[in-house]
Amino acid sequence: MKFYSGVTLVTLGVENVERASVFYESLGWRRSKGASQPAITFFALNTLALALFPRDALAADSGIDPGRLAPLGTFSGVALAQNHGSRAAVNSVIAQARAAGATIVQPPRDADWGGYHGVFADLDGHVWEICFNPFFPLAADGSVTLPL
Amino acid sequence: MKFYSGVTLVTLGVENVERASVFYESLGWRRSKGASQPAITFFALNTLALALFPRDALAADSGIDPGRLAPLGTFSGVALAQNHGSRAAVNSVIAQARAAGATIVQPPRDADWGGYHGVFADLDGHVWEICFNPFFPLAADGSVTLPL
Repeated sequence: MKFYSGVTLVTLGVENVERASVFYESLGWRRSKGASQPAITFFALNTLALALFPRDALAADSGIDPGRLAPLGTFSGVALAQNHGSRAAVNSVIAQARAAGATIVQPPRDADWGGYHGVFADLDGHVWEICFNPFFPLAADGSVTLPL
Repeated sequence: MKFYSGVTLVTLGVENVERASVFYESLGWRRSKGASQPAITFFALNTLALALFPRDALAADSGIDPGRLAPLGTFSGVALAQNHGSRAAVNSVIAQARAAGATIVQPPRDADWGGYHGVFADLDGHVWEICFNPFFPLAADGSVTLPL
Protein backbone atom coordinates (compact mmCIF):
# COMPACT_ATOMS: atom_id res chain seq x y z
CA MET A 1 0.00 0.00 0.00
CA LYS A 2 1.23 3.44 -0.84
CA PHE A 3 1.58 5.63 2.23
CA TYR A 4 1.63 9.32 1.50
CA SER A 5 4.85 10.54 3.06
CA GLY A 6 3.85 13.94 4.22
CA VAL A 7 2.45 16.21 6.82
CA THR A 8 -0.37 18.26 5.38
CA LEU A 9 -1.60 20.04 8.47
CA VAL A 10 -0.23 20.94 11.88
CA THR A 11 -2.84 21.93 14.42
CA LEU A 12 -1.86 23.79 17.57
CA GLY A 13 -4.29 23.60 20.45
CA VAL A 14 -4.71 27.07 21.94
CA GLU A 15 -6.63 28.72 24.73
CA ASN A 16 -8.06 31.54 22.63
CA VAL A 17 -8.16 31.17 18.85
CA GLU A 18 -8.50 34.87 18.10
CA ARG A 19 -5.67 35.83 20.44
CA ALA A 20 -3.41 33.18 18.93
CA SER A 21 -4.41 34.20 15.40
CA VAL A 22 -3.49 37.81 16.07
CA PHE A 23 -0.14 36.64 17.45
CA TYR A 24 0.73 34.77 14.25
CA GLU A 25 -0.57 37.58 12.09
CA SER A 26 1.74 39.92 13.96
CA LEU A 27 4.60 37.71 12.76
CA GLY A 28 3.54 38.46 9.20
CA TRP A 29 1.33 35.48 8.42
CA ARG A 30 -2.04 35.87 6.73
CA ARG A 31 -5.00 33.78 7.73
CA SER A 32 -6.91 31.93 5.02
CA LYS A 33 -10.23 33.75 4.97
CA GLY A 34 -11.95 31.07 2.91
CA ALA A 35 -10.98 28.22 5.21
CA SER A 36 -11.05 29.94 8.60
CA GLN A 37 -14.12 30.05 10.80
CA PRO A 38 -14.74 31.63 14.19
CA ALA A 39 -13.73 28.39 15.92
CA ILE A 40 -10.64 27.67 13.82
CA THR A 41 -8.02 29.65 11.95
CA PHE A 42 -6.00 28.29 9.05
CA PHE A 43 -2.77 29.64 7.64
CA ALA A 44 -1.50 28.35 4.28
CA LEU A 45 2.27 27.80 4.38
CA ASN A 46 3.53 26.54 1.04
CA THR A 47 2.44 22.92 0.94
CA LEU A 48 1.53 22.83 4.61
CA ALA A 49 -1.37 24.30 6.52
CA LEU A 50 -1.20 25.43 10.13
CA ALA A 51 -4.40 25.52 12.13
CA LEU A 52 -5.20 27.13 15.48
CA PHE A 53 -8.04 25.42 17.31
CA PRO A 54 -9.19 25.37 20.94
CA ARG A 55 -7.11 22.89 22.85
CA ASP A 56 -10.07 21.15 24.51
CA ALA A 57 -11.96 20.91 21.23
CA LEU A 58 -8.89 19.49 19.53
CA ALA A 59 -8.67 16.74 22.13
CA ALA A 60 -12.41 16.04 21.98
CA ASP A 61 -12.55 16.13 18.19
CA SER A 62 -9.74 13.61 18.03
CA GLY A 63 -11.26 11.34 20.67
CA ILE A 64 -8.20 11.83 22.83
CA ASP A 65 -8.04 10.38 26.31
CA PRO A 66 -4.92 12.12 27.66
CA GLY A 67 -4.29 9.29 30.13
CA ARG A 68 -3.60 6.90 27.28
CA LEU A 69 -0.95 9.04 25.63
CA ALA A 70 2.09 7.64 27.40
CA PRO A 71 4.65 8.82 28.29
CA LEU A 72 3.39 12.37 28.18
CA GLY A 73 0.43 11.52 30.39
CA THR A 74 -1.18 14.59 28.95
CA PHE A 75 -2.11 15.69 25.47
CA SER A 76 0.79 17.57 23.88
CA GLY A 77 -1.61 20.06 22.35
CA VAL A 78 -0.21 19.41 18.89
CA ALA A 79 -1.77 17.22 16.21
CA LEU A 80 -0.09 16.40 12.92
CA ALA A 81 -2.35 15.46 10.04
CA GLN A 82 -2.11 13.64 6.77
CA ASN A 83 -4.76 14.17 4.15
CA HIS A 84 -5.62 11.31 1.83
CA GLY A 85 -7.82 11.07 -1.22
CA SER A 86 -10.40 8.56 -0.03
CA ARG A 87 -12.02 6.86 2.95
CA ALA A 88 -10.35 3.60 1.92
CA ALA A 89 -6.91 5.21 2.12
CA VAL A 90 -7.65 6.43 5.64
CA ASN A 91 -8.68 2.93 6.68
CA SER A 92 -5.50 1.47 5.21
CA VAL A 93 -3.17 3.87 6.98
CA ILE A 94 -4.86 3.38 10.34
CA ALA A 95 -4.62 -0.40 9.90
CA GLN A 96 -0.94 -0.08 9.01
CA ALA A 97 -0.25 2.12 12.04
CA ARG A 98 -2.05 -0.36 14.30
CA ALA A 99 0.09 -3.19 12.93
CA ALA A 100 3.21 -1.12 13.63
CA GLY A 101 2.29 -0.73 17.29
CA ALA A 102 0.46 2.61 17.34
CA THR A 103 -2.42 3.22 19.73
CA ILE A 104 -5.59 3.79 17.75
CA VAL A 105 -7.07 6.79 19.54
CA GLN A 106 -10.07 6.95 17.26
CA PRO A 107 -11.01 4.33 14.67
CA PRO A 108 -11.92 5.87 11.31
CA ARG A 109 -15.36 7.45 11.27
CA ASP A 110 -17.34 10.21 9.61
CA ALA A 111 -16.42 13.61 11.06
CA ASP A 112 -19.05 16.19 11.86
CA TRP A 113 -17.32 18.62 9.50
CA GLY A 114 -18.18 16.40 6.54
CA GLY A 115 -15.01 14.39 6.11
CA TYR A 116 -13.73 11.06 7.39
CA HIS A 117 -10.87 10.57 9.83
CA GLY A 118 -9.05 8.30 12.20
CA VAL A 119 -6.49 9.18 14.86
CA PHE A 120 -3.51 7.28 16.17
CA ALA A 121 -0.84 8.01 18.77
CA ASP A 122 2.66 6.89 17.91
CA LEU A 123 4.91 4.98 20.33
CA ASP A 124 5.67 8.21 22.21
CA GLY A 125 2.14 9.58 22.35
CA HIS A 126 2.39 11.96 19.39
CA VAL A 127 -0.99 12.36 17.75
CA TRP A 128 -1.64 11.90 14.02
CA GLU A 129 -4.94 12.51 12.36
CA ILE A 130 -5.38 10.60 9.10
CA CYS A 131 -8.19 12.16 7.16
CA PHE A 132 -10.13 12.50 3.97
CA ASN A 133 -11.38 16.07 3.57
CA PRO A 134 -13.43 16.63 0.40
CA PHE A 135 -13.26 20.41 1.00
CA PHE A 136 -9.46 20.66 0.85
CA PRO A 137 -8.38 19.53 -2.64
CA LEU A 138 -5.35 17.26 -2.67
CA ALA A 139 -2.64 18.11 -5.20
CA ALA A 140 -0.60 15.56 -7.12
CA ASP A 141 2.29 15.99 -4.67
CA GLY A 142 0.00 15.18 -1.76
CA SER A 143 -0.25 18.73 -0.46
CA VAL A 144 -3.58 20.36 0.33
CA THR A 145 -4.97 23.55 -1.12
CA LEU A 146 -6.92 25.80 1.20
CA PRO A 147 -9.83 27.84 -0.06
CA LEU A 148 -8.66 31.47 -0.34
CA MET B 1 10.94 42.69 7.62
CA LYS B 2 10.09 39.68 5.55
CA PHE B 3 9.03 36.74 7.67
CA TYR B 4 9.27 33.39 5.96
CA SER B 5 5.82 31.92 6.29
CA GLY B 6 6.57 28.30 6.66
CA VAL B 7 7.37 25.34 8.78
CA THR B 8 10.53 23.68 7.58
CA LEU B 9 11.02 21.07 10.27
CA VAL B 10 8.86 19.32 12.83
CA THR B 11 10.80 17.55 15.58
CA LEU B 12 9.11 14.94 17.73
CA GLY B 13 10.73 14.23 21.07
CA VAL B 14 10.89 10.48 21.58
CA GLU B 15 12.10 8.05 24.21
CA ASN B 16 14.11 5.86 21.84
CA VAL B 17 15.15 7.27 18.47
CA GLU B 18 15.79 3.90 16.82
CA ARG B 19 12.51 2.43 18.01
CA ALA B 20 10.62 5.50 16.78
CA SER B 21 12.51 5.45 13.47
CA VAL B 22 11.57 1.84 12.86
CA PHE B 23 7.95 2.70 13.63
CA TYR B 24 7.84 5.41 10.95
CA GLU B 25 9.76 3.25 8.50
CA SER B 26 7.14 0.58 9.00
CA LEU B 27 4.59 3.13 7.75
CA GLY B 28 6.55 3.35 4.52
CA TRP B 29 8.76 6.35 5.21
CA ARG B 30 12.45 6.33 4.37
CA ARG B 31 14.99 7.96 6.63
CA SER B 32 17.45 10.40 5.12
CA LYS B 33 20.75 8.57 5.41
CA GLY B 34 22.83 11.65 4.69
CA ALA B 35 21.21 13.79 7.35
CA SER B 36 20.50 11.20 10.03
CA GLN B 37 22.92 10.37 12.83
CA PRO B 38 22.71 7.88 15.68
CA ALA B 39 21.17 10.56 17.92
CA ILE B 40 18.69 11.93 15.39
CA THR B 41 16.69 10.65 12.45
CA PHE B 42 15.43 12.84 9.63
CA PHE B 43 12.70 12.03 7.13
CA ALA B 44 12.28 14.25 4.05
CA LEU B 45 8.60 14.89 3.36
CA ASN B 46 8.16 17.05 0.30
CA THR B 47 9.10 20.55 1.48
CA LEU B 48 9.06 19.56 5.13
CA ALA B 49 11.44 17.52 7.22
CA LEU B 50 10.41 15.43 10.20
CA ALA B 51 13.00 14.68 12.87
CA LEU B 52 13.00 12.19 15.72
CA PHE B 53 15.23 13.22 18.61
CA PRO B 54 15.43 12.21 22.28
CA ARG B 55 12.82 14.14 24.21
CA ASP B 56 15.20 15.22 26.99
CA ALA B 57 17.85 16.32 24.50
CA LEU B 58 15.25 18.26 22.52
CA ALA B 59 14.29 20.18 25.65
CA ALA B 60 17.90 20.77 26.65
CA ASP B 61 19.01 21.72 23.14
CA SER B 62 16.23 24.30 23.00
CA GLY B 63 16.95 25.69 26.45
CA ILE B 64 13.45 24.72 27.56
CA ASP B 65 12.37 25.17 31.14
CA PRO B 66 9.07 23.25 31.13
CA GLY B 67 7.72 25.30 34.02
CA ARG B 68 7.72 28.42 31.89
CA LEU B 69 5.63 26.91 29.10
CA ALA B 70 2.17 27.90 30.33
CA PRO B 71 -0.46 26.59 30.19
CA LEU B 72 0.97 23.19 29.40
CA GLY B 73 3.21 23.27 32.44
CA THR B 74 5.24 20.64 30.66
CA PHE B 75 7.06 20.51 27.36
CA SER B 76 4.73 19.25 24.64
CA GLY B 77 7.53 17.20 23.14
CA VAL B 78 7.04 18.84 19.75
CA ALA B 79 9.15 21.63 18.27
CA LEU B 80 8.32 23.38 15.01
CA ALA B 81 11.19 25.00 13.18
CA GLN B 82 11.71 27.65 10.59
CA ASN B 83 14.95 27.79 8.67
CA HIS B 84 16.27 31.13 7.54
CA GLY B 85 19.15 32.14 5.34
CA SER B 86 21.26 34.12 7.79
CA ARG B 87 22.01 34.88 11.42
CA ALA B 88 20.53 38.35 10.95
CA ALA B 89 17.21 36.88 9.84
CA VAL B 90 17.11 34.70 12.95
CA ASN B 91 17.71 37.74 15.14
CA SER B 92 14.93 39.66 13.40
CA VAL B 93 12.33 36.95 13.77
CA ILE B 94 13.11 36.43 17.45
CA ALA B 95 12.85 40.19 18.03
CA GLN B 96 9.52 40.26 16.20
CA ALA B 97 8.18 37.32 18.23
CA ARG B 98 9.25 39.02 21.45
CA ALA B 99 7.43 42.19 20.43
CA ALA B 100 4.32 40.11 19.72
CA GLY B 101 4.30 38.69 23.24
CA ALA B 102 6.17 35.40 22.82
CA THR B 103 8.38 34.05 25.59
CA ILE B 104 11.97 33.95 24.40
CA VAL B 105 13.05 30.53 25.58
CA GLN B 106 16.53 30.88 24.19
CA PRO B 107 18.01 34.08 22.75
CA PRO B 108 19.78 33.51 19.44
CA ARG B 109 23.17 31.87 19.83
CA ASP B 110 25.60 29.60 18.02
CA ALA B 111 24.47 25.98 18.19
CA ASP B 112 26.89 23.16 18.89
CA TRP B 113 25.90 21.54 15.57
CA GLY B 114 27.40 24.46 13.68
CA GLY B 115 24.40 26.66 13.04
CA TYR B 116 22.72 29.54 14.83
CA HIS B 117 19.32 29.43 16.49
CA GLY B 118 16.87 31.03 18.86
CA VAL B 119 13.76 29.53 20.44
CA PHE B 120 10.48 31.11 21.44
CA ALA B 121 7.26 29.79 22.96
CA ASP B 122 4.05 31.25 21.59
CA LEU B 123 1.21 32.49 23.81
CA ASP B 124 0.12 28.89 24.47
CA GLY B 125 3.54 27.41 25.10
CA HIS B 126 4.13 25.95 21.63
CA VAL B 127 7.83 25.89 20.85
CA TRP B 128 9.36 27.34 17.68
CA GLU B 129 13.01 27.09 16.80
CA ILE B 130 14.18 29.82 14.43
CA CYS B 131 17.44 28.76 12.89
CA PHE B 132 20.14 29.24 10.34
CA ASN B 133 21.57 25.88 9.28
CA PRO B 134 24.35 26.14 6.70
CA PHE B 135 24.19 22.36 6.16
CA PHE B 136 20.54 22.30 4.99
CA PRO B 137 20.33 24.38 1.81
CA LEU B 138 17.33 26.68 1.65
CA ALA B 139 15.38 26.67 -1.61
CA ALA B 140 13.80 29.73 -3.19
CA ASP B 141 10.41 28.75 -1.79
CA GLY B 142 11.86 28.62 1.71
CA SER B 143 11.91 24.85 2.01
CA VAL B 144 14.99 22.93 3.12
CA THR B 145 16.80 20.21 1.23
CA LEU B 146 18.19 17.34 3.26
CA PRO B 147 21.41 15.64 2.23
CA LEU B 148 20.48 12.26 0.69
